[in-house]
Amino acid sequence: MPTITLTTDFGLTDHFAGTMKGVIAGIAPRATVIDLCHQVTPYEILEAGFIVLQAYNYFPRGTVHVLVVDPGVGTSRRPILLEAAGQLFIGPDNGAFTLLYAAEPKHKVRAITASKYFLKSVSNTFHGRDIFAPVAAHLASGKLKPAQLGALIKDYTQATAIFPTRTGKRVWTGQVLKVDHFGNLITNLRAADFAIEEAKHFEMLVGSQIVSRYAKNYQGSGFGELFVIEGSSGFFEVSACQSSAAKHLGCGAGAPLELSIW
Amino acid sequence: MPTITLTTDFGLTDHFAGTMKGVIAGIAPRATVIDLCHQVTPYEILEAGFIVLQAYNYFPRGTVHVLVVDPGVGTSRRPILLEAAGQLFIGPDNGAFTLLYAAEPKHKVRAITASKYFLKSVSNTFHGRDIFAPVAAHLASGKLKPAQLGALIKDYTQATAIFPTRTGKRVWTGQVLKVDHFGNLITNLRAADFAIEEAKHFEMLVGSQIVSRYAKNYQGSGFGELFVIEGSSGFFEVSACQSSAAKHLGCGAGAPLELSIW
Amino acid sequence: MPTITLTTDFGLTDHFAGTMKGVIAGIAPRATVIDLCHQVTPYEILEAGFIVLQAYNYFPRGTVHVLVVDPGVGTSRRPILLEAAGQLFIGPDNGAFTLLYAAEPKHKVRAITASKYFLKSVSNTFHGRDIFAPVAAHLASGKLKPAQLGALIKDYTQATAIFPTRTGKRVWTGQVLKVDHFGNLITNLRAADFAIEEAKHFEMLVGSQIVSRYAKNYQGSGFGELFVIEGSSGFFEVSACQSSAAKHLGCGAGAPLELSIW
Repeated sequence: MPTITLTTDFGLTDHFAGTMKGVIAGIAPRATVIDLCHQVTPYEILEAGFIVLQAYNYFPRGTVHVLVVDPGVGTSRRPILLEAAGQLFIGPDNGAFTLLYAAEPKHKVRAITASKYFLKSVSNTFHGRDIFAPVAAHLASGKLKPAQLGALIKDYTQATAIFPTRTGKRVWTGQVLKVDHFGNLITNLRAADFAIEEAKHFEMLVGSQIVSRYAKNYQGSGFGELFVIEGSSGFFEVSACQSSAAKHLGCGAGAPLELSIW
Repeated sequence: MPTITLTTDFGLTDHFAGTMKGVIAGIAPRATVIDLCHQVTPYEILEAGFIVLQAYNYFPRGTVHVLVVDPGVGTSRRPILLEAAGQLFIGPDNGAFTLLYAAEPKHKVRAITASKYFLKSVSNTFHGRDIFAPVAAHLASGKLKPAQLGALIKDYTQATAIFPTRTGKRVWTGQVLKVDHFGNLITNLRAADFAIEEAKHFEMLVGSQIVSRYAKNYQGSGFGELFVIEGSSGFFEVSACQSSAAKHLGCGAGAPLELSIW
Repeated sequence: MPTITLTTDFGLTDHFAGTMKGVIAGIAPRATVIDLCHQVTPYEILEAGFIVLQAYNYFPRGTVHVLVVDPGVGTSRRPILLEAAGQLFIGPDNGAFTLLYAAEPKHKVRAITASKYFLKSVSNTFHGRDIFAPVAAHLASGKLKPAQLGALIKDYTQATAIFPTRTGKRVWTGQVLKVDHFGNLITNLRAADFAIEEAKHFEMLVGSQIVSRYAKNYQGSGFGELFVIEGSSGFFEVSACQSSAAKHLGCGAGAPLELSIW
């Protein structure tokens, strides 16, 4: 029973995601298709990649993740296949996989050129349906090997992602990668890399405020009190008790932050 | 082919619900996973329970309903299993099942303590993924019996739900439990308990208005005209023809109401 | 492995779509149920039909499409079954299939009268659950033939859809059928019917503006620049580079347009 996930900026008011599933049902009727998210901010490729980054470790070996945030659909940008961590990821070569490349250094990337696995007629405006859904279905069916799709490439696109940087003896800069549904600011700082809990003191500067409280869970402080917490994917989050840190701080994805520990 | 339903306040802009399905796919690949709702108002446990209450009678025997609205995740609140009506319900012990306890007096509740059915690493912030998804998958696979998860308990949490109360010879008070997508005000008054259709006259006081028209279907009155109707789950609804009663009345979930019949 | 699709105006904040899937799971547990869209504008039957129209060609033969935008639920309007293009479509007879009737002239329509395939208790307010879900599941299970559901009819309802009209030697009028998630204005003009690319010049009058640029893909012009493009379902769209044409033009579904070619 193969698994396919879908992550797109197609929203939920059109037929787009459903039509991709119709194509998959015709090729791999036994595949389980799971929506990761169709509400990626339009054109925000890094947000899409971060959604997949937080999720893929929890999927069975061999899962095919389809990631279609594709403002360049119909242009010369290539469809690619990423092999990493025993799973497969397909989508346009526009940098959306940048965070995955960094998280899984032992990865392989192929340019998908075997057009016989595409739909017979390929539009210029919906490659999710015409290229990525059928290729994902063929891969999930187990009969198609990655190498049959195309040759390995090295010159795949890397987006300008801002990775954490050490800027002083006890100072690091990072950024907010995503605001989740509850208003938590999910940062690009991995908790395992910083011994915050053992430190005497730490300060997270975000927006115009300094947050220096560390919490083990979302409860236990007063309503709206700000704290740093280790989120479920291993990244620090800035949260506000029972309310939205994003609203309290006036911050969103892309906001810079500075962490000092001593 | 076991069935699992998911009801959460996780929204649709993150990977959360999808990641739960990834965990389930790894354990019970043949399970059908059905979203009941991921747009429960954040932290509103009774709303979540009411969504499941309206739906569960229409699911096959043995269905496992997962209900995760969990502001206390990572604290000492227990995970529990509710057995009722031939189905299983799991979630945090925070009172979200209160309406189900009342609807199914012959129920059993267990504290889930068999942590070997959890993921190996349990976070403090996402028990939907780490505890409830794997437990649901093991239950749905048919190999795990409820008694293997933990002992029966009696001291499970009951939320302060407002049940209908008779306040006079011909007067009852109740409240709006939910505003549905069309703006209908779904009340906690079960139509079967009140002989409105046979009565000479009735008045439903809601917001600052009295509604005394009863309708058999949503059509047949003038645009915006208010009426009471028996909703599809057996509760009275206050509706407005082809428009939103919630907007007309300025009312939402929790609004009190008074029903008089004579 | 039969496939069923769902298209409704039920939204995503209630149990409605999930409950339909529970009914299906009880009757046809092996069916794959695919959401096309649950965010159809409330009561907009033509929008719902257009969503199905854009998708059905990409679904396997024998797929059962359920289309429930049903303001007249509980009144005398009939449930119907449309057979076309090797697929089945069911829903209330309120005109929602009008665009499909036109697209598939060789169609058959039946009034669904075999109530033994409905749930035992049929409400006046939720036929998606009580009639259409169980009928779809029985059809998808392969044991029920369309003719067992009811007799062929000719007097099914046609909505007042505005089809493209030639109003001059080189002039056609049409309308916007839908605004998609990206703000593209999807028109009812099929690209294959108009030789825009070969023409010397064309003008699409929409809102108060004339668009005369034709593009092969969504990129390659300046931010916000308006153009006409062939959309993925074969209809012309009016689009704005990397932004919303609907916002630029102040137009939505139903807006008239005029195409001149010479």
